[in-house]
Amino acid sequence: MAGLWCGDDPHAANSRPCRRARAHRPARRRWLPLLRRGRSLAGAGRRATGGLSVPKLPVIHDIQERDEGRNRIEELDLEFSNGERRRYTRLKPRGHGAVIIAAMPDPETVLLIREYACGVHRYELGLPKGRIDAGESILEAANRELKEEAGFGGRRLSLVRSLTLAPTYMAHQTHLVLAEDIYPEKLVGDEPEDLEVVPWRLDRLHELMLLEDCSEGRSLAALFIIREYLHHRGPAVDGPADEVRG
Amino acid sequence: MAGLWCGDDPHAANSRPCRRARAHRPARRRWLPLLRRGRSLAGAGRRATGGLSVPKLPVIHDIQERDEGRNRIEELDLEFSNGERRRYTRLKPRGHGAVIIAAMPDPETVLLIREYACGVHRYELGLPKGRIDAGESILEAANRELKEEAGFGGRRLSLVRSLTLAPTYMAHQTHLVLAEDIYPEKLVGDEPEDLEVVPWRLDRLHELMLLEDCSEGRSLAALFIIREYLHHRGPAVDGPADEVRG
Repeated sequence: MAGLWCGDDPHAANSRPCRRARAHRPARRRWLPLLRRGRSLAGAGRRATGGLSVPKLPVIHDIQERDEGRNRIEELDLEFSNGERRRYTRLKPRGHGAVIIAAMPDPETVLLIREYACGVHRYELGLPKGRIDAGESILEAANRELKEEAGFGGRRLSLVRSLTLAPTYMAHQTHLVLAEDIYPEKLVGDEPEDLEVVPWRLDRLHELMLLEDCSEGRSLAALFIIREYLHHRGPAVDGPADEVRG
Repeated sequence: MAGLWCGDDPHAANSRPCRRARAHRPARRRWLPLLRRGRSLAGAGRRATGGLSVPKLPVIHDIQERDEGRNRIEELDLEFSNGERRRYTRLKPRGHGAVIIAAMPDPETVLLIREYACGVHRYELGLPKGRIDAGESILEAANRELKEEAGFGGRRLSLVRSLTLAPTYMAHQTHLVLAEDIYPEKLVGDEPEDLEVVPWRLDRLHELMLLEDCSEGRSLAALFIIREYLHHRGPAVDGPADEVRG
């Protein structure tokens, strides 16, 4: 699915061009032949990231902005490297991004919260998260949200990576922060009620991932990433550049 | 962060009530004491799902609808079980949901695609995905998108679970489909260019998860879920209710 207002989102219902109305184009497809599947494919990723096989970015000929309700929309006039010309729509970035926090009371356990989610009208299990306020650093925002939502602060905070929500039409970033060496501390947030905190063992993610009320992709991705990160990092060490002590 | 228009999204910049302007409420917080962390916590999840500890859903006193650009917005007048009364905003569901497909050329490898993402103006690595068209089943949509985006069809398709994008303000579901016993077949989709297909070994997700250009939470979650699912399922067997053969 191309990025014409993403299409995988209810926003998009009216904006996707009809597939069947378009001319049939010849099927020229580049792919790493499946013949290669016998060898380690890590190299494919490095090659991709290194840049050799990454396609040339489309040229942005023009950007038109307009308001749509509370959103600021950008319409891009794009030319792809094969000469195809398309209009894509995206949300103009606002705010300072968001944080999602994996707080570890011990090396095997992470703290989930259960929060009412009005989009699906049910209580959802997931990691604490929230927006970064003006003037806050990523790690400050993470520690504040952790205190507000779970009633803990972290003395050791590490930025693990940034995730996108829907990169085909939004620039929005959610920064995944690992909080270790945690201690009870409560800040009052904007929640209408106290949130239940549910410790969960990382070796039980295969059970969590199938619960209907633990459904948010970003939260599940963050949990698996933290488990892998901890596994490959080994025992915590002092001093990486992306880490602070509170 | 409460679900007042989510707040973790650029849509939300103007709609979150100022934290500092609210009255300080007493910090009463329920949490499973960390003392319990020594025992298996799978029980906590079951208990949660079983319903005993899940809070009573807020009462929806009223829903007001309005248009905001292309979106239909619902404003909910909610009363939480502790008596707190709040207005929450959500997108009214439209469309038929979306699919995300993990296609396996062999039991160790999954097919990624590299697609231009205008929200972040870069090529992104991730799983094929797209919207369900009117009249399509989930598995039909998955197979069509797989053929359009990756040039393969699947003879064995299984619905693994459904993921949400942002349940605090959207009902939107993305259904994760595992495609096995795949074969080359191409359908023309709405992409402006052919997409590169990149096979990736599931035992190398810890490398993929740290690539800057593989950033979408939903896609990363789906990959880890598939790996766990396959690990716990064991060798493929015939006949579950959520599975078809093409």
